[in-house]
Amino acid sequence: MTVLLRPARRADLARIVALIADDEISAARTGTFDDAHLAGFDAIEADPNNELVVAERDGEVVGTMQLTFVPGISRYGATRLLVEAVRVDSRLRGQGIGRQMMLWAHERGRARGCVLAQLTSDKRRPDAHRFYRSLGYAQSHEGFKLPL
Amino acid sequence: MTVLLRPARRADLARIVALIADDEISAARTGTFDDAHLAGFDAIEADPNNELVVAERDGEVVGTMQLTFVPGISRYGATRLLVEAVRVDSRLRGQGIGRQMMLWAHERGRARGCVLAQLTSDKRRPDAHRFYRSLGYAQSHEGFKLPL
Repeated sequence: MTVLLRPARRADLARIVALIADDEISAARTGTFDDAHLAGFDAIEADPNNELVVAERDGEVVGTMQLTFVPGISRYGATRLLVEAVRVDSRLRGQGIGRQMMLWAHERGRARGCVLAQLTSDKRRPDAHRFYRSLGYAQSHEGFKLPL
Repeated sequence: MTVLLRPARRADLARIVALIADDEISAARTGTFDDAHLAGFDAIEADPNNELVVAERDGEVVGTMQLTFVPGISRYGATRLLVEAVRVDSRLRGQGIGRQMMLWAHERGRARGCVLAQLTSDKRRPDAHRFYRSLGYAQSHEGFKLPL
């Protein structure tokens, strides 16, 4: 199943929030679409190093992810591609949509000069870990989070 | 031992690169100071959502870290504080410098509206993992990397 990848529009946001919230782990911490999500969208739009992307099929948004291009000093001044909030419609999983999205993200990262992609995935998502390993990712790091 | 935290200057960069390279895991992938690191520094300087920070004691740089403020949709449109490339002079570890740096980073993140801090640490660094847990971080995620 082939999807079209494109920048998210403001009109996509309610659907994006629903996709992000559509699992047990994320539901409680995402909530239903409101002004806070709109403010987040506007902040992404205002930052040239951030891109919110959707996967579309037959005019419907079926996936989403956020890309951040992070300049740095390590690894010979490498720019990194950070991938966050990757989601595919739960009714359409296992059909290669996530793979198309990630390959597109890597291409976009290379176009922006990134030499490394990185992401974290909740330890409770073993299927996602298998998916990222299948794309060639090394599961080399521990991921830490702290509410501020 | 109290340190002063301040934005990095271009003149600090050779020292920062040496700090980042000063361990077995990072040495090979950081290299010695050259134009590539300067380009990385300039890219950080040009991005209002990135800050390279140093810890200074008696006029000497003894630690470094990079902060990235990442807008987002998840967690009610939360902005995240991403902390990368945290290093303390290997001769001065265990004296609370890293803790001062991280607490400063969290304060800076809050001032920038961040509600969550996140970082990854190589699985070969168990001492670092213990340190982050001692700061209250949840070791909740797997971290993945892919060369592009």
